[in-house]
Order: sequence, then C-alpha cells, then structure tokens
Amino acid sequence: MEKDGKCKLILISNDDGIDSLGIHTLVDYMVNYGEVVVVAPEQPQSAKSSSLTVETPLRARQLPDYHGAKMWRVNGTPVDCTKLAFSHILGRKPDIVVSGINHGSNAGINAIYSGTMGVVFEACINGIPSVGFSLLSHDANADFTECENVVRTVVDGVLANGLPKDVCLNVNIPAKCKVKGIKVTNAAEGVWVEDFEKTTDPHGREIFWLTGRYEVTHPDDSSSDIYWLDREYATVVPCTPDQTAKRAISALSSVFDNDFDV
Amino acid sequence: MEKDGKCKLILISNDDGIDSLGIHTLVDYMVNYGEVVVVAPEQPQSAKSSSLTVETPLRARQLPDYHGAKMWRVNGTPVDCTKLAFSHILGRKPDIVVSGINHGSNAGINAIYSGTMGVVFEACINGIPSVGFSLLSHDANADFTECENVVRTVVDGVLANGLPKDVCLNVNIPAKCKVKGIKVTNAAEGVWVEDFEKTTDPHGREIFWLTGRYEVTHPDDSSSDIYWLDREYATVVPCTPDQTAKRAISALSSVFDNDFDV
Repeated sequence: MEKDGKCKLILISNDDGIDSLGIHTLVDYMVNYGEVVVVAPEQPQSAKSSSLTVETPLRARQLPDYHGAKMWRVNGTPVDCTKLAFSHILGRKPDIVVSGINHGSNAGINAIYSGTMGVVFEACINGIPSVGFSLLSHDANADFTECENVVRTVVDGVLANGLPKDVCLNVNIPAKCKVKGIKVTNAAEGVWVEDFEKTTDPHGREIFWLTGRYEVTHPDDSSSDIYWLDREYATVVPCTPDQTAKRAISALSSVFDNDFDV
Repeated sequence: MEKDGKCKLILISNDDGIDSLGIHTLVDYMVNYGEVVVVAPEQPQSAKSSSLTVETPLRARQLPDYHGAKMWRVNGTPVDCTKLAFSHILGRKPDIVVSGINHGSNAGINAIYSGTMGVVFEACINGIPSVGFSLLSHDANADFTECENVVRTVVDGVLANGLPKDVCLNVNIPAKCKVKGIKVTNAAEGVWVEDFEKTTDPHGREIFWLTGRYEVTHPDDSSSDIYWLDREYATVVPCTPDQTAKRAISALSSVFDNDFDV
C-alpha cells in the first residue's frame, strides 16, 4: 500500500505470449508489490518491435486469475496489448509497467527488434516507469531462478527513485550461472551477419529463414552490456523511445536548411 | 558515375508495399542517380516498425523492371526486405538506402511505429546512409508533385556530405500546399490519445479498432517537426537506431550498480 492508501497497480506484458514461463515467473515476482494485471499476446510475438495492428480489429478476453493476477489475452502485438491496457482495461494509470521475462537476449542493438522492449517504449511514451527483462536463454523451460534477485533489485530501485524523463530500462540477465551483480551500461554496438539461411521448400522453391549471429564491434568495451553479460553480470541499459539524434541537428542544419523559391 | 567509374547503387524499400504510388514516385526520382534496386513488401506493412519474420520463411520474386529499376517483392516486413536485399539480392553494399515515399506522416514519436523508418534504421545499423520520406497524406492517389524538390535536395546533400556516424534521416513533407523549404528539427514530443474505437462485430462481440489522434505536448515549440510541417515546410529529423539514453547512465549507475553476495 502507498502512503495515500492506494495499492500500486502493475501492468505486465511480453512478446512470448501469455502462456510462456517467463511471464508467469514475472507475475510471481510482482504480486507482492500490488495489484497485477497481465495483458499479453495470445500468440508468440517475438521480434515484433513497436508494430501495431492496423488492418484488423483486436479482441481482448479475460482468463482465470493466475496466482492473484488478473489475466487478459489479446490477438495482437505487444504494443497493441499495452495500448489496449492503458485505454480500456486498467481503468487507471499503472505505477509501473514490466515486460518479459523474455526467453532470449535483448542486448546490443536488439532492443530495436524486440517486442518485449516495444511494451517498455510504449509505457515510457505514456510517462509510466517501465522495465523490460530478458534472460539469455531461448529454452521454453529455461531456469529463471537467478532472475528473481535482479528483478526485485531493479523494481525496488525504480519504485523508490523513479526514472529520468523519457527514460526506460532494458535489463538482460545471463543464463546458466550465478549472477554476480548488476551493471548500468550502454548497448553494445554491433551488427547481425549471415542473416538468412537459403534453402528450398519441399517443392524445390527457394526460401530464406532468418538466422545469423550478432557480431559485436568492440568486444573489449567495458561500457557495453554484452561485455558484462559475458562476465555473468545482469545489465541495465537506460533507453529512450525518442530516436532523435540531437547531437546532429546543428551540423545538419547547415547542410539541409533551405528556403525554396516559391 | 562515381570517380572510380562505378555507378552508384541505390536500394529502395517502403512499408506501403511494392504496388504503391509512393514507391513508384521515389523510383522515378532516383533513377537519375544510378542503378536502382527495389526490394519491397508484397503486402502493405504499415506500422510494422522494425519487426522481423521469425516463424515462417521468406520468398523473394523478381518482377519486370519498372522505369529502369530492378523490382523484387518479398512476403515479409520492411526490415525483412532490407536484410534480404543486403545479404542475397544486391550483391554489393549500396551507396544509399531510401524508403517511401510513405503515404502518411511519420512525424513526432511516430518514427518508432513506422515500417518506412524500420528500413532506414536497418540500413543505418549496417553503416549505409539512409533516408525515409513521408508525405502527410494517406490518400492512395496522393499528389506527390511537391515531394520531388525535397527528395532531390536531401539526396544531393546526403550523397555530397554523407551523414554522421549512426545517424539517418526522417523526412516529412506537407501535403496540399506549395512546400516553402526544408528545416532540420527535433521530433515533436507527444502522445496518441483515444487510441481505439470500441465497437461490436456482426455477431455482437466486442472489438477494438486502432484509431486515435496525436496530441503534441508543446505545439509552439519551433524546434519540432510538427511545428514546421504545420507551416508548410518539409522537415528533416536526424535519427539513430541506438536507443541508449547515454545522458542517464551516470545517475542510474549510482542507483542500480550492485555486486551480489555470491
């Protein structure tokens, strides 16, 4: 309970879908903080970024409560779920939005492709403190035990201190090790290489499957998330949904500012 | 032709699909600059952000040339098209990637939802100068005449000067007016309100259609794109795919940096 007697309201979503172990784990960690409402995709939505459903209508269906949390599933993307929660399901502004726990890394540049982080950016755009959690294992039955201390430490910090304006958090957690601690870092610079496997379907037609590996540009950069994840630390990358490169405005003005002869 | 005798290679993609008037218009503007290859979605992909197709394979099909440009259509998202172009279609790194011309605004925070800008961010991640163009009209038969001067001025500037590292451009162009010039600006801060129309399907079941309007937080801010679009200027917002809020790292380190007792 807060000082004013109102219980904290917590929205949880994800991109692996409402049936995933990661979101159930996160519910179990969050129910002690207040009233938990889950609004999550009915189908897996990995790599959906901040995409929206524009051509078809959404349907929201309430399911039985899970460990004290209200559960809603939506036939849309992670950001669809978040927007629908804010506008039609929650009834009031949540105190915090948490997303995940994602099955797989969202370190480096991968925040831009991540549906988990789509939820977090959407909450941030709406002025709500928000955190995405990802475990570095794609296993549907991954062991989330080591996540608990990280999630509680980060959520405690956010609820106690808030976050800077237009800033949200991308938290990644190493798998198959004892987590040594938490580091606040940059996203590791890098690029995906060998993006697709070229093969043929049973009818002999050429097809491409998304695959590839992430190649870090500066592997020894100790200010980057992947450096510390490799060393068994969880990482917190502060992120912003506004992608304006303010540092470039002055130089580019001298090139592009222009009055046409009209 | 460049100094080394090699023709410039230009990749064009978009999110409205390969049959849209906007992409045909952009081809017509770009064919004078060099060899143009279009790799674009077979279906409209509005608001697909940086999403990727992970669960199904992609197919690429070459179509007849259009006004001198090679044309490829792909059954995926804008970023799928871009990645597939880089890895399997183009054969060499393009000199510039241009996306659009989008039918509709990508000003303000909307860059984060935009498939047009997904293409541009993907090129930027791969170190290729890239620009997204959007006309402020959703009309499938919009009048693109006023875009030509803007596109040529921006492309000339990018090819002559390059762009700063990790910076790409989001260009919006006002519709139904004589464009007065070009301004380099920030993205206008704002938020979508009344996001969904709640209604029922023919069977009486509740459905939600995405709708809403973008409410600008500071409408008199003359450093923002929407301010200048309202005044009949095209706007150039420098953007970056790395969403790390570097300004927040130091303050957040003091809250979250932590060594666990392991």
